[in-house]
Amino acid sequence: MAHRIYANELEMLHECVETCNYCLESCLEEKDVQMMVDCIRLDRECAAACSFLAEAMTRDSAFVPELARACAIICKACAQECEKHKHAHCQECARVCTECASMCDRLAA
Amino acid sequence: MAHRIYANELEMLHECVETCNYCLESCLEEKDVQMMVDCIRLDRECAAACSFLAEAMTRDSAFVPELARACAIICKACAQECEKHKHAHCQECARVCTECASMCDRLAA
Amino acid sequence: MAHRIYANELEMLHECVETCNYCLESCLEEKDVQMMVDCIRLDRECAAACSFLAEAMTRDSAFVPELARACAIICKACAQECEKHKHAHCQECARVCTECASMCDRLAA
Amino acid sequence: MAHRIYANELEMLHECVETCNYCLESCLEEKDVQMMVDCIRLDRECAAACSFLAEAMTRDSAFVPELARACAIICKACAQECEKHKHAHCQECARVCTECASMCDRLAA
Repeated sequence: MAHRIYANELEMLHECVETCNYCLESCLEEKDVQMMVDCIRLDRECAAACSFLAEAMTRDSAFVPELARACAIICKACAQECEKHKHAHCQECARVCTECASMCDRLAA
Repeated sequence: MAHRIYANELEMLHECVETCNYCLESCLEEKDVQMMVDCIRLDRECAAACSFLAEAMTRDSAFVPELARACAIICKACAQECEKHKHAHCQECARVCTECASMCDRLAA
Repeated sequence: MAHRIYANELEMLHECVETCNYCLESCLEEKDVQMMVDCIRLDRECAAACSFLAEAMTRDSAFVPELARACAIICKACAQECEKHKHAHCQECARVCTECASMCDRLAA
Repeated sequence: MAHRIYANELEMLHECVETCNYCLESCLEEKDVQMMVDCIRLDRECAAACSFLAEAMTRDSAFVPELARACAIICKACAQECEKHKHAHCQECARVCTECASMCDRLAA
């Protein structure tokens, strides 16, 4: 029962989707939105990748390692961009994406 | 912060995605798989719809009511099909889809 | 064979996904990005909805009318926002979303 | 303009999504559906992966190579399974998935 095996991983991925989308929405409302454009792009990318990996887990995909490998790279890129910004939502997003990247690295191994 | 507002709804939708996909996988392993074809189709449909609605919530979509309206119809159809089968995974799926449909009805109202 | 029946509809939806995402990317690069925030949000929403409807068509979903109903509403909202902006990508996006909304209305009928 | 750069690739991916989903639907209607279970699973997986890669292209993702790498592996696995079956839809699906895998390999390089 895939989603029981992956219960912790699914929780992490859902948290990352939610945090990235919250960061994206918050970036759109920042006064310096022009500075946040790369962050917006990477938040969107990372939310999509984590959401896709979560769906793959729930359908008991045989390709979780391959998809986790790509997802780890995207999470790291998003974390790296978010770290550049002082906004609380970016700092929080950097933290969650870094944690999620580590988990994806383990799944990909 | 959309995902905080929708925390319970997201949990319900994630549970429904997981339950539908588990039912689908289990149907594929049943000896009478030929009897389960409609269930497989509706499980897939329902997992996709719930997953899409969850994503919409996390991006703070203005269209949650409209998407929930469609999702409710799909959850009910899946529940109705699952109820026909005695397998434990179908009975459980019927229960979860019925609960999820009620929630979607409330969101659509 | 669903995707043959829906060949024209799929082409329209794919065009709308691409046009919305191009508009979104272009909005992010505008100097007045702060003015484009609602457009960015609706482009994202519309691309997601059209992409989801296209996927439903390819899996021969029984719920194309219900999903098309929600998609039509989202396409119209995106068109309405895009019409407000003079940028060529917004004007083009408004045109394509309006056309796609009409098609979705027909599918929903 | 991402979707113009990727026009041929998007066409290939859309064809692969449609062919996999048609194969899946056709497998569900075969008398020997029990023999087709792995094919059904891989068709679903491959349709999801190609659809996700296509969406990434339309949003001008910086991670097309990474996602194409995972997609190539999934397309190959689907082709390999489909080749085992004499049904016309499986043979056609094997052909399209093999072609799509080659394209993904080029994108990943």
